[in-house]
Amino acid sequence: MTLAAAQSRYEAEVSRQWSAHPADGAHDLGHLRRVWTRAQLIALDEPCDMAVLLAACMFHDLVNLPKSHPDRARASTLSAEAACHFLRHDGFAVDKLSAVGHAIAAHSFSAGITPMTTEARVLQDADRLEALGAIGIARMFHVSGAMGGGLFHADDPMALHRPHDDRAYALDHIETKLLKIVQTMQTAPGRAMAAERAEWMLSFRTRLLREIG
Amino acid sequence: MTLAAAQSRYEAEVSRQWSAHPADGAHDLGHLRRVWTRAQLIALDEPCDMAVLLAACMFHDLVNLPKSHPDRARASTLSAEAACHFLRHDGFAVDKLSAVGHAIAAHSFSAGITPMTTEARVLQDADRLEALGAIGIARMFHVSGAMGGGLFHADDPMALHRPHDDRAYALDHIETKLLKIVQTMQTAPGRAMAAERAEWMLSFRTRLLREIG
Repeated sequence: MTLAAAQSRYEAEVSRQWSAHPADGAHDLGHLRRVWTRAQLIALDEPCDMAVLLAACMFHDLVNLPKSHPDRARASTLSAEAACHFLRHDGFAVDKLSAVGHAIAAHSFSAGITPMTTEARVLQDADRLEALGAIGIARMFHVSGAMGGGLFHADDPMALHRPHDDRAYALDHIETKLLKIVQTMQTAPGRAMAAERAEWMLSFRTRLLREIG
Repeated sequence: MTLAAAQSRYEAEVSRQWSAHPADGAHDLGHLRRVWTRAQLIALDEPCDMAVLLAACMFHDLVNLPKSHPDRARASTLSAEAACHFLRHDGFAVDKLSAVGHAIAAHSFSAGITPMTTEARVLQDADRLEALGAIGIARMFHVSGAMGGGLFHADDPMALHRPHDDRAYALDHIETKLLKIVQTMQTAPGRAMAAERAEWMLSFRTRLLREIG
């Protein structure tokens, strides 16, 4: 099966499983395709088993729990299990299943699992890039709207005189999480892309602060 | 009463009335203060009765109905009535009440009321600037998240081969509404600020499209 044929097949399965538990607007097929596109770019410098990488990219958010869900930290492990269950019955090479499962399980922040393979490192980087740059800004404010949070603290948007609170103020998320992502990148191409996106994100914040100041 | 004292008094009243009907995160005291700050900047070139302008700015969203509410088009008229009711009992100059009411009623898109006074034109411009620039981007994605919409169409983000649909895709809102705001600006300073913010907004979109492409 070609990668393109496999991708169509996986997208159909993700859509089917997601239709029972609709995800938020920041997690859709577009997100999966962008992660796969970027994973392929990173893999130019970090040679991967592309069948493993594709499956890991397309199924990494298969079980997608909201940030407030008590099982959130287990979502990537549950996704790995569900992905391997599907792939096993779909004729995927049995000796590669554990590589897919590990990449999926290790991609998540909250799981705290160290990526041990190139495919796992590439998926983690490709997924984390979605939190940076203009797409990161779009997702950050979108998620805060969906969760009922505010845009920023009206009197102290930079949190100079208060603790950060990214549940209450979307803008705080840049400092509490997004800028830290750059330090967690696993590959050289991922690090370079993350640094460029983080820099742009700071220019967005500077502009926003100027507009609201 | 100084303008600063009046502002504190009005903020307390808005907070009191809003506490019964919590608004979305894009409509808070910060929004009111930014509108007032920009209104004062515009008023440097468009002389206003500042007591009228302040009251209009602080109370313009007093009755804040969600975009999906059937009475949405009447929200600004209801805000004007509620503001005048409060101000009349608060000792506001009776001969200026109708000017406050008109500015508030006319600020809204959906009301379709033409602003007939300088204060009404300045408030409308100051409020519309909130939809442009980085703050416009933040609010656009935040509101779409709160309303359960998506970020953009995964296959056709620019709507080249489909009709625009800003209920479904936040990014469509730039084309369906935000860029049109520039043409509705009522004052010379407002027009200049709107043009600069719209240009930046397009650079945001270009960057986003590059990242997701």
